[in-house]
Amino acid sequence: MSNPTASAPPVDYQTHPEIYKHWSLKFEGPVATLVMTINEDAGLRPGYKLKLNSYDLGVDIELNDAVQRIRFEHPEVRTVIVTSGRDRVFCSGANIFMLGKSSHPWKVNFCKFTNETRNGLEDSSRHSGLKFLAAVNGACAGGGYELAAACDEIILVDDRSSAVSLPEVPLLGVLPGTGGLTRLTDKRHVRHDHADIFCTTSEGVRGKKAKDWRLVDEVVKTQGFAQRVQERARELAALSDRPAAAKGVALTPLNKTVTADAVTYGHVAVRIDRAGRTATLTVKAPTGAQPVDVAGIEAAGSDWYPLQMARELEDAILHLRTNELDIGTWLLKTQGSVDAVLAMDATLEANKNHWFVRETIGLMRRTLARLDVSSRSMFALIERSSCFAGSLLEIALAADRSYMLALPDEPAVAPKIAVSAMNFGTFPMVSHETRLQRRFYGNADEIAAVQATQGRALDADAALALGLVTAAPDDIDWADEIRIAVEERVSLSPDALTGMEANLRFAGKETMETRIFGRLTAWQNWIFIRPNAVGEGGALKVYGTGSKPQFDWTRV
Amino acid sequence: MSNPTASAPPVDYQTHPEIYKHWSLKFEGPVATLVMTINEDAGLRPGYKLKLNSYDLGVDIELNDAVQRIRFEHPEVRTVIVTSGRDRVFCSGANIFMLGKSSHPWKVNFCKFTNETRNGLEDSSRHSGLKFLAAVNGACAGGGYELAAACDEIILVDDRSSAVSLPEVPLLGVLPGTGGLTRLTDKRHVRHDHADIFCTTSEGVRGKKAKDWRLVDEVVKTQGFAQRVQERARELAALSDRPAAAKGVALTPLNKTVTADAVTYGHVAVRIDRAGRTATLTVKAPTGAQPVDVAGIEAAGSDWYPLQMARELEDAILHLRTNELDIGTWLLKTQGSVDAVLAMDATLEANKNHWFVRETIGLMRRTLARLDVSSRSMFALIERSSCFAGSLLEIALAADRSYMLALPDEPAVAPKIAVSAMNFGTFPMVSHETRLQRRFYGNADEIAAVQATQGRALDADAALALGLVTAAPDDIDWADEIRIAVEERVSLSPDALTGMEANLRFAGKETMETRIFGRLTAWQNWIFIRPNAVGEGGALKVYGTGSKPQFDWTRV
Repeated sequence: MSNPTASAPPVDYQTHPEIYKHWSLKFEGPVATLVMTINEDAGLRPGYKLKLNSYDLGVDIELNDAVQRIRFEHPEVRTVIVTSGRDRVFCSGANIFMLGKSSHPWKVNFCKFTNETRNGLEDSSRHSGLKFLAAVNGACAGGGYELAAACDEIILVDDRSSAVSLPEVPLLGVLPGTGGLTRLTDKRHVRHDHADIFCTTSEGVRGKKAKDWRLVDEVVKTQGFAQRVQERARELAALSDRPAAAKGVALTPLNKTVTADAVTYGHVAVRIDRAGRTATLTVKAPTGAQPVDVAGIEAAGSDWYPLQMARELEDAILHLRTNELDIGTWLLKTQGSVDAVLAMDATLEANKNHWFVRETIGLMRRTLARLDVSSRSMFALIERSSCFAGSLLEIALAADRSYMLALPDEPAVAPKIAVSAMNFGTFPMVSHETRLQRRFYGNADEIAAVQATQGRALDADAALALGLVTAAPDDIDWADEIRIAVEERVSLSPDALTGMEANLRFAGKETMETRIFGRLTAWQNWIFIRPNAVGEGGALKVYGTGSKPQFDWTRV
Repeated sequence: MSNPTASAPPVDYQTHPEIYKHWSLKFEGPVATLVMTINEDAGLRPGYKLKLNSYDLGVDIELNDAVQRIRFEHPEVRTVIVTSGRDRVFCSGANIFMLGKSSHPWKVNFCKFTNETRNGLEDSSRHSGLKFLAAVNGACAGGGYELAAACDEIILVDDRSSAVSLPEVPLLGVLPGTGGLTRLTDKRHVRHDHADIFCTTSEGVRGKKAKDWRLVDEVVKTQGFAQRVQERARELAALSDRPAAAKGVALTPLNKTVTADAVTYGHVAVRIDRAGRTATLTVKAPTGAQPVDVAGIEAAGSDWYPLQMARELEDAILHLRTNELDIGTWLLKTQGSVDAVLAMDATLEANKNHWFVRETIGLMRRTLARLDVSSRSMFALIERSSCFAGSLLEIALAADRSYMLALPDEPAVAPKIAVSAMNFGTFPMVSHETRLQRRFYGNADEIAAVQATQGRALDADAALALGLVTAAPDDIDWADEIRIAVEERVSLSPDALTGMEANLRFAGKETMETRIFGRLTAWQNWIFIRPNAVGEGGALKVYGTGSKPQFDWTRV
């Protein structure tokens, strides 16, 4: 299989409405309309045409950017209508020729980002009062229906032909793998036998049956469709507490310098050791005077430290995931003042109900959640001058292991960690648990013991005793222990590590999101490399050629 | 990859202690000891030696049989000690050379049965008061530790060398995939970073650290080991309500006739349509006088209908799964009197606290649970003369779809279904939900509406209105509708169906078991076909050759 990334420029996740190729945005008071009119000649990579409003990663990068801008630049928006600018087709899903040509890592990475973007819609609905309404004004198939299902509600036009469908199994021999199966059950409560029929029927379901089976929320005749969509959008808007008169915060372009082995932002830096197959990701604490009230925060705008840091960290994670496939281990570091981070957390906590602070916390939450689902080994290294406190401690808590330097004889320079109010509910994982709850399996005593130290700097011994770090080597052992741990890690099978980490990181509660990333994705990854899908006669390969797929009938 | 099943005789899941090759059983009052002394020359298939107490499917078939016999033939047993008959080695896990030589379907099927056997230990602990104590008297690696973890408690000998370990990731490039990762987190609550170290360290963990990390429950010096094991076994026995003086029920050999395209038992029949790639599995209702009290039930012994039927159904399921790999669709039927099934259920319900009835119900529960995790499409066909009532209705509820013949003009011969007390908690799925809870997403009103019909025969219209069947074609449509549905089903990609069914069937709550079958297994299946494990230079292939594995370092 050819890898679209192979000789192509790196994928850039930054974009701007002025250069969108596939989406347009309309704003009318509390309602924004996100219109998908996919340019079939503007695929991210050459070799396929995005016909019938089918999408590739580039389309999803724009969707992610558009939703982000609505969050920050348009605080007055309470409902987002997602609809199509094409006649008779809402969206026909991920482009099949793109999938057929893509390498396995490209497919998997594409699906992960798509899943994160869709989960992001639900995250904003849950946490920020931004509601999403899918106005399905034409045929809605596969990933198109999966996108609709990520919205709070779906209204389907009744034009006697437009249907919703998940034809992946019958047409392509793969799963509706970007949330489709999971949202049918977990979110929409479609009965399992109805779902079985729906997912094995390429023509889909329309009209009353679509509603009876809970596949859509409403079915409206063509004539009244536009009006009903507007009406319902206003009704959903009434449920939201987004501010009517606030001024948006423009998301200015990131200040990013890319060289062969480094990516440098204002507060985040990535350094790649190609021989060692590691990336060191360093987040720097705020320095200098920081705003402490809403006026100051608004004045800082997109330069406000927590927002800028989260945007940079998000971009760094996405960059490494997509463009640095064989850099399998990430070493996570922080640098700066523990007190400065705790002060930032105090400001976040004090102003968390202000819309802009709430959105900033939301971006931090979603960015930290991207770490949890990154298929890379992560070791946090808590060294001299580090500042793993509060919000930034979440980075260490997200890691597979954390090593903290013990310097019992040098208390002044010994690294410290600290918890803040932000560690106890502000940044839930996709399991909807905090990372501390995950760590301690919800054990109330252990969590309370940690909580009792809030705001206090803890040295390595204290952190180890509380169970907050994995190991605490002293100065004599540190270099060797870290070197050996990293060397061992990078020597292991990348696939086995991905599977192991996916199981161990989600040790606790399951949610729709964990089932999408853990169960659905794992099955899809398996199917994505089976000959029945991607072999010479596999369904994904022969789609559109007129040939019938050749299957090995063995059931596994 | 060669498939051990290819030119080999079919696998037979029936065995007997007198012909065990690998296990021996000792009985001392309430304590049974199950001793594993694996005969390295007695592998189920040629081509590998079961060194160091490593196992293959044959070893697990004996373990399953042994536990089953303890349940039924030894009601006085309350604690089962699982230990090794070899010096310095408890169990070194699944035989790696067997895995390296096996086809993908063989590996997956082997793991599924192993998982079911281990879940069966926990099922008996939870439901029947049979406790399991792993007396780890030597090195305990990989699947050996997974077996220990399936016991209620683990006592590890402290001989300064014996360790527990899960070396699959570092040594083989695969996962501890038969429950290992999941039991570490869900059952033993090993902290995720400790688990990360444990699972990437081939030498394992012993002594105090093994206990501190919760990998074992006790560590006991060699000298006092045997005594402490006995003592703890008696303590666990005190928690059990298994009867001290009851007479066991001997499990007589199944009456089973195998021909080219059929397997026939007393109450269960399998007929295979090779051209159509379907198997029809028919369960017949009890006929003639049936015992209604404990005395009669005990007198019937292993001929008692529900026990015999469950043993036959279990054997049929295991046979089809292992020996009929390309028969992808199972058509589930019943035949006989609805009233006879309801009468059986009344007897089961009235006597459910008697140990023998409880064990019989347990076998029915575990057998129905095998249906849920079978990677075959299942359609229940509710036709004239069928008897999908109560316990047997669970078969239809387990199916991916159910079709019920509507004969509104012939009420006397129209098929009926009925619910009994047994449909509301007696046969939980591995999700620990009933199949009705799964069907209705726990909706109390819908379940209550079904419950209100208890004992009443429901025709197709009534069943459809209650949501108990998928479709109810009439006599004119029946033949065509079923034919088309089956033809469509068998034409689809077997892999996509397996993934789809695994997601849709477990629509509800997650448990340790669902995470083993759904999440862990899916990742393992993916890893099991990746070149990093099974390619020419893959870790599983080169193990034992002295060569180092060759990995593609790409992270997916």
